Amino acid sequence: MLRQVRRGKLSVEDAVDRLRNLPYEDLGYAKIDHHRALRQGFPEVVLARGKTPAQVEGVVRRMLRNRHNILITRGDNTLFERLRKLDPQAEFHELSGAITVRRDPKIRGKGKILVVCAGTSDIPVAEEALVTAEVMGNRVQALYDVGVAGLHRLLGESRHLRDARVIIVVAGMEGALPSVVAGMVGVPVIAVPTSVGYGASFRGLAALLGMLNSCSPNVCVVNIDNGFGAGYLASVINRL
Amino acid sequence: MLRQVRRGKLSVEDAVDRLRNLPYEDLGYAKIDHHRALRQGFPEVVLARGKTPAQVEGVVRRMLRNRHNILITRGDNTLFERLRKLDPQAEFHELSGAITVRRDPKIRGKGKILVVCAGTSDIPVAEEALVTAEVMGNRVQALYDVGVAGLHRLLGESRHLRDARVIIVVAGMEGALPSVVAGMVGVPVIAVPTSVGYGASFRGLAALLGMLNSCSPNVCVVNIDNGFGAGYLASVINRL
Amino acid sequence: MLRQVRRGKLSVEDAVDRLRNLPYEDLGYAKIDHHRALRQGFPEVVLARGKTPAQVEGVVRRMLRNRHNILITRGDNTLFERLRKLDPQAEFHELSGAITVRRDPKIRGKGKILVVCAGTSDIPVAEEALVTAEVMGNRVQALYDVGVAGLHRLLGESRHLRDARVIIVVAGMEGALPSVVAGMVGVPVIAVPTSVGYGASFRGLAALLGMLNSCSPNVCVVNIDNGFGAGYLASVINRL
Amino acid sequence: MLRQVRRGKLSVEDAVDRLRNLPYEDLGYAKIDHHRALRQGFPEVVLARGKTPAQVEGVVRRMLRNRHNILITRGDNTLFERLRKLDPQAEFHELSGAITVRRDPKIRGKGKILVVCAGTSDIPVAEEALVTAEVMGNRVQALYDVGVAGLHRLLGESRHLRDARVIIVVAGMEGALPSVVAGMVGVPVIAVPTSVGYGASFRGLAALLGMLNSCSPNVCVVNIDNGFGAGYLASVINRL
Amino acid sequence: MLRQVRRGKLSVEDAVDRLRNLPYEDLGYAKIDHHRALRQGFPEVVLARGKTPAQVEGVVRRMLRNRHNILITRGDNTLFERLRKLDPQAEFHELSGAITVRRDPKIRGKGKILVVCAGTSDIPVAEEALVTAEVMGNRVQALYDVGVAGLHRLLGESRHLRDARVIIVVAGMEGALPSVVAGMVGVPVIAVPTSVGYGASFRGLAALLGMLNSCSPNVCVVNIDNGFGAGYLASVINRL
Amino acid sequence: MLRQVRRGKLSVEDAVDRLRNLPYEDLGYAKIDHHRALRQGFPEVVLARGKTPAQVEGVVRRMLRNRHNILITRGDNTLFERLRKLDPQAEFHELSGAITVRRDPKIRGKGKILVVCAGTSDIPVAEEALVTAEVMGNRVQALYDVGVAGLHRLLGESRHLRDARVIIVVAGMEGALPSVVAGMVGVPVIAVPTSVGYGASFRGLAALLGMLNSCSPNVCVVNIDNGFGAGYLASVINRL
Amino acid sequence: MLRQVRRGKLSVEDAVDRLRNLPYEDLGYAKIDHHRALRQGFPEVVLARGKTPAQVEGVVRRMLRNRHNILITRGDNTLFERLRKLDPQAEFHELSGAITVRRDPKIRGKGKILVVCAGTSDIPVAEEALVTAEVMGNRVQALYDVGVAGLHRLLGESRHLRDARVIIVVAGMEGALPSVVAGMVGVPVIAVPTSVGYGASFRGLAALLGMLNSCSPNVCVVNIDNGFGAGYLASVINRL
Amino acid sequence: MLRQVRRGKLSVEDAVDRLRNLPYEDLGYAKIDHHRALRQGFPEVVLARGKTPAQVEGVVRRMLRNRHNILITRGDNTLFERLRKLDPQAEFHELSGAITVRRDPKIRGKGKILVVCAGTSDIPVAEEALVTAEVMGNRVQALYDVGVAGLHRLLGESRHLRDARVIIVVAGMEGALPSVVAGMVGVPVIAVPTSVGYGASFRGLAALLGMLNSCSPNVCVVNIDNGFGAGYLASVINRL
Repeated sequence: MLRQVRRGKLSVEDAVDRLRNLPYEDLGYAKIDHHRALRQGFPEVVLARGKTPAQVEGVVRRMLRNRHNILITRGDNTLFERLRKLDPQAEFHELSGAITVRRDPKIRGKGKILVVCAGTSDIPVAEEALVTAEVMGNRVQALYDVGVAGLHRLLGESRHLRDARVIIVVAGMEGALPSVVAGMVGVPVIAVPTSVGYGASFRGLAALLGMLNSCSPNVCVVNIDNGFGAGYLASVINRL
Repeated sequence: MLRQVRRGKLSVEDAVDRLRNLPYEDLGYAKIDHHRALRQGFPEVVLARGKTPAQVEGVVRRMLRNRHNILITRGDNTLFERLRKLDPQAEFHELSGAITVRRDPKIRGKGKILVVCAGTSDIPVAEEALVTAEVMGNRVQALYDVGVAGLHRLLGESRHLRDARVIIVVAGMEGALPSVVAGMVGVPVIAVPTSVGYGASFRGLAALLGMLNSCSPNVCVVNIDNGFGAGYLASVINRL
Repeated sequence: MLRQVRRGKLSVEDAVDRLRNLPYEDLGYAKIDHHRALRQGFPEVVLARGKTPAQVEGVVRRMLRNRHNILITRGDNTLFERLRKLDPQAEFHELSGAITVRRDPKIRGKGKILVVCAGTSDIPVAEEALVTAEVMGNRVQALYDVGVAGLHRLLGESRHLRDARVIIVVAGMEGALPSVVAGMVGVPVIAVPTSVGYGASFRGLAALLGMLNSCSPNVCVVNIDNGFGAGYLASVINRL
Repeated sequence: MLRQVRRGKLSVEDAVDRLRNLPYEDLGYAKIDHHRALRQGFPEVVLARGKTPAQVEGVVRRMLRNRHNILITRGDNTLFERLRKLDPQAEFHELSGAITVRRDPKIRGKGKILVVCAGTSDIPVAEEALVTAEVMGNRVQALYDVGVAGLHRLLGESRHLRDARVIIVVAGMEGALPSVVAGMVGVPVIAVPTSVGYGASFRGLAALLGMLNSCSPNVCVVNIDNGFGAGYLASVINRL
Repeated sequence: MLRQVRRGKLSVEDAVDRLRNLPYEDLGYAKIDHHRALRQGFPEVVLARGKTPAQVEGVVRRMLRNRHNILITRGDNTLFERLRKLDPQAEFHELSGAITVRRDPKIRGKGKILVVCAGTSDIPVAEEALVTAEVMGNRVQALYDVGVAGLHRLLGESRHLRDARVIIVVAGMEGALPSVVAGMVGVPVIAVPTSVGYGASFRGLAALLGMLNSCSPNVCVVNIDNGFGAGYLASVINRL
Repeated sequence: MLRQVRRGKLSVEDAVDRLRNLPYEDLGYAKIDHHRALRQGFPEVVLARGKTPAQVEGVVRRMLRNRHNILITRGDNTLFERLRKLDPQAEFHELSGAITVRRDPKIRGKGKILVVCAGTSDIPVAEEALVTAEVMGNRVQALYDVGVAGLHRLLGESRHLRDARVIIVVAGMEGALPSVVAGMVGVPVIAVPTSVGYGASFRGLAALLGMLNSCSPNVCVVNIDNGFGAGYLASVINRL
Repeated sequence: MLRQVRRGKLSVEDAVDRLRNLPYEDLGYAKIDHHRALRQGFPEVVLARGKTPAQVEGVVRRMLRNRHNILITRGDNTLFERLRKLDPQAEFHELSGAITVRRDPKIRGKGKILVVCAGTSDIPVAEEALVTAEVMGNRVQALYDVGVAGLHRLLGESRHLRDARVIIVVAGMEGALPSVVAGMVGVPVIAVPTSVGYGASFRGLAALLGMLNSCSPNVCVVNIDNGFGAGYLASVINRL
Repeated sequence: MLRQVRRGKLSVEDAVDRLRNLPYEDLGYAKIDHHRALRQGFPEVVLARGKTPAQVEGVVRRMLRNRHNILITRGDNTLFERLRKLDPQAEFHELSGAITVRRDPKIRGKGKILVVCAGTSDIPVAEEALVTAEVMGNRVQALYDVGVAGLHRLLGESRHLRDARVIIVVAGMEGALPSVVAGMVGVPVIAVPTSVGYGASFRGLAALLGMLNSCSPNVCVVNIDNGFGAGYLASVINRL
């Protein structure tokens, strides 16, 4: 663009305007960033929590003008009914509250993303990771309820661990599963602590600290209950 | 007053009485302080939370005898309906729960106060700051949803930053926005952490700690979700 | 004793005196409790930390009048030299700082106590547990450096796990080892978090919380670095 | 099994299959581990919290195929009504929310397990421990409301303390009772902090820390409100 | 004074001066408050920690002009040598680091103040309380090493508890002793948590929380290791 | 009693029985301690929170057999209706939820107890302290809404501070009021932090820590929101 | 610059270069930002802590090429000796460790900045604020040791409070002073918590929380011990 | 191996032996795991902290028998001198304390790993990450002192961000840099909080929480100061 200015093809004022307006769209209460999606084939994402249904609808309406996949996290059935009217392709994933509009079925990830979880109560977070990875164009697989107190369950499924290019491990309580899984593989492991537990789990703090102190060096950590972040990061890695 | 006593124009007993009674009015459950408002043209303020509607109404009733602006923070629609009967000028600001009675339109602040917020979910706190600054006699402007993950949105609006005499920056989650904004300007930045976030945000603790550790030295911090305090302090600074 | 009083064989005053004086001996700065040792064949124990060497020596001097084993925890070489003069049988356990005087070699525990530790840095705490269990009359065995990041090391030693009647598991960092071990056995597991680690281990807090949230129900926890407590409790269980 | 493979009696594929399938049963959302129960005469346990009623029912349905006792913790009346249809023997323990199906009345524990609690508000957790120990085949006894502020109540019941082989002590607020009880006996004491209290109890943190710092070395600790864990561990110890 | 002004006996300026200068003396780095001592026969107190030896000496030099007792807390031998030159009556209390200059031997407290401590390591804090109470004109008594793990030691000394008008209880680790003591008496109990302990004592936090959650309602708490505060408050109560 | 046994007037068995049964009454879920009340003219107290209405009623029914005042804290209107049927003298204190049955009007405290609070929202806790002190036989006075941000309100009421023998100061948010009040008087000040506040008040933690660190040495602290404890302790001190 | 490019006076490449190089200078281990100083007449600042003396010297050497004041915080005598060789004008402020090189004596602040501190131990932090404000071109005044436990000291100096345009209040322990000061004035108050205190001050946490919860709305807070930040922000406000 | 057993080529006993002995070597105090290195061309790693020099030397001695690169983290000069005698190729990286023995120069990573740090004080941790990535066979680049308070420094270097396949961002204080960097790129960002800071940084907690709450979804986090973990994980990702 600087070159265009130099050649006189673009006035200075216009250049400044473009810089200002191009990459996002201003709704007053939100500035939608089409940037990532435009450039990288990523989906457009809305975090529903903390927004009014009208705000979410407003944002989704704009997003539908492009042809990308859309992911709304932490929604509910009411919001889903509202969005379904905008696009009948919308799907509701009840366990995690995610809503997806899949319009681009292309697989962009090079390998498989495996989502492992420790207990039945961790499934909602695991599903958010799974849905995110899927809507971002990855082959995914789930392996649930393989916590460390019954190690034979994990060992019995170890072939799935070896098949994956990126592994997401979701666990609450003591959060020990990522260390064990990471010790069995040579690929990156994204650990997601959950708020599952009671008492001294302090709403996921115990699991979070455990994962941050993992003695397996191929582990990194995202926020408590952040299935979306884990799925997103796994997708970014899987496209490398 | 001591001089009056000396000259015999005021009895010792009366002097003691005045000292005791003048600056506040005693309702039993509350001692209303008209002092600040009287002396400085400040509005009279009631924090509704933790008071019964009857208590708030009682306090507002006394305040209406003076001619100042009145600000009730953290109210709700029920309280508003009750107060509107006392004065039809009362306005309800739904997002933040603030109720205002504007009777003195005078602009007392010397420059403009800019309220910046990081995400759509931070708007309620930002609005409380905005309404407070406005009712205290300032020109104000809002700049919303310019979080650090999409820096071009903030850079695209940088001229607004340069126009302000005091800037309030409202952010939850990692609370990084005040540091970035403060690095771009030479005026005071008041940082307001919000309880927006989940998991390791610990209801605003992460944002609070981030802001306290800001590497930009023109930043100071108020309590989590304390939009009122930020708006008040900004007004005090803007009158200097 | 009440009966003796009834029968006139013991004056009321004497009874009160006995009640007052028998079970402990008063040194001013310490009241030595010979009670447990007397009744149960337990060793006499002194925690050296927080006492002056003279105080420790004073206490040990009294203890030597009985014929029990003596255990001094958290001592150092200087203290050892001082105590060796009181009894040449004294032994110094350098890694943990424990000093023992073994005078009663009798094995009182019914089975074997196994002490497992996760990493080389956890050995000092593990040794304190081992020495305590030994001086309390148990057969003991150590299994070191079998942390969960390399599970094959633990699996390769699993026969030792099956041999034990009580297992002590010592681990710092994420503290995941007790859950894994406990899932492999049917005996009680005493978990000892250590302050080994850095950053978000918060001096053992991460390991402590992890262990308290263990998904294996045959696990209980003692204080951070409390090898002594684990060894003592294991001995109490092993005598049942 | 390796030997069978060697002798040609078992194909490699079948061996792998057995290793994979035998010890647990896969319901998709849960992998039921019949292992412990099968081998050790332990009950089968489901933690209801965090599972949907349908999931709990699915798991219990499978468990009913074996002949073990079944324990569902943290249930409620609705869940109980649902499970009672599966087996009329199901019992609901209202204070703790535990549901039991007792089909194996055999006493497996060698001595008596005593459950002590500090205050009336701690009874729900104490009952969970009691029910767990009972369904695992132990003789149990309860001793309630004997907190340390009125020591004569505890001293008046001290004969019960001397009768027990394992003692569970349940206490909220300052959590001092386990230290006092443990100082009066020579058997293992399992301390259960409860979330009973307010203010600086921080939902059980004060009691938890107090118990972890107990000056009585025959004390170990489980998670806040973890009556189940205490009852389970006491049973494991009582079978030694 | 107002009356004097009224009668013309005191000029307004002088009145203002008196108000400003009388109650404290300004050394630049410190404003010495002779007020309390003057009015109430209290000693003059300096907290040595955080002040340079020269600053402490400067303050003490001024204090020596009055005839009150002087108490310097958290000093050391070097400081003592320096202060002894100012007044040979100065005494050093080695365990707690307190330095006293007793010039007024009058007993002002109505009853006896008893200082109880749980373990030998708590003695330094207990001694600070004892010395403070003594220098403030009270009869005092010490009862050391009577922690709750060996309750018979405390019960054996219970007559001392009944003799006291105010009781100070000093304890680290789980901090259970104040609850037990307070349950045995009808007088006020001032609880002092100490930083004695390790691991999950978190430098006295466990003891502090325990004491704040005491189930005995005649207990109040001061800061961790604050023997001085406990001794001071006990003296204030004992003069009532 | 020992003497009676000696003289043969009391059999050993009876003595043991008396020791066991006299001081408390066993309802199964609660052991009522009539001890304090009997001996010292204290009221009988029930903490309603954490007990079922039936349990509270059961306890109160027994208490009514004696002639003491009864205090039930943290009750509600439903419970009050139930208890009023047991004794028509029962009174409900709506702000604090306290229920009292005053049957003994005797004043036992020697001086006046003053209850000061910082803000209108702190009144419920202040009232609990006031009601407790009253039912325990003290003359009491309230001084509300005199927080440190408007110091003239407190200074204007300073004569009330000088009239009191014991002062209770109730404050939330930064909890600064006890230090200021204590600096103005020579009597004991009992500080009660409240959970009033938001954000970084962390449900009273900020006020609690502030009070524990008070630079006024005549301050002690009770648990967050513990108006009862403060009123009780003030009464104990006021009887000295 | 864009305009220059447009007119052909500046090549695109050069423009990019300028953008890249102008505002900071790259030393490898540090990128010196002359920007603020250049534009606003601010001093150049180095935080010595965490840098080697050689690194600090390297940075200062570059800074000396411009004509601004230089401020090095948290230095020591050794560093001072080294820097004095670079410029004999360098001054060392021993209490706070600040080193200044004053070359521009111009007063830029419009009013006076007052630095208030609570106790003698808070002086080092107060001095850092004072020196910073001074080197940034302000008239400053100090008011030390006026903590809230002896309110008459503060009231006696209240005329100084009324003279200031911005007030910095430095306090450790309970951190109550900023609320009290802010209630007496109508100007902005910058609160600086210090790590002065012990036990439950948790290295300044108590003071920090207290200040964040101030009931005076003209208070904002900076990091614990951050005298520099307070002085800097006060200067920014004082130039408005 | 199972197949070999089946075919009779391997005895059952030998198979068990291999399973047990192959993957690690037992030194008593450590079980060296050659596994990863053998299979994947990874270096062999020793964490020096918490091990005696003799223990480190013993482990390194065994590692030198293989031909892999060796990395010792958190060492010092003394340890380096000792290890240099074992292999003259050993190199000491003074800032981070890392010691490397590079024997395999092969580049295994597909792209470039960029290490960004916020301030000069963060360099030691950044260097540990850099050295780790280098010794694991990656092309690496450093970009230091580009904190968010002076955003133009980061923007001026943005071309380096776009060149990298994986980015490590190291920051203390508020830890805002990873969010900003991650918002500018489409590759994975590994955030490393450092303990750089003071006061409310709480030794890295502020930075850690900030990073966990990043609003950029392509960010994951490792432990405070864990440069090694970041470098290791980046290498694992860069080989995909």
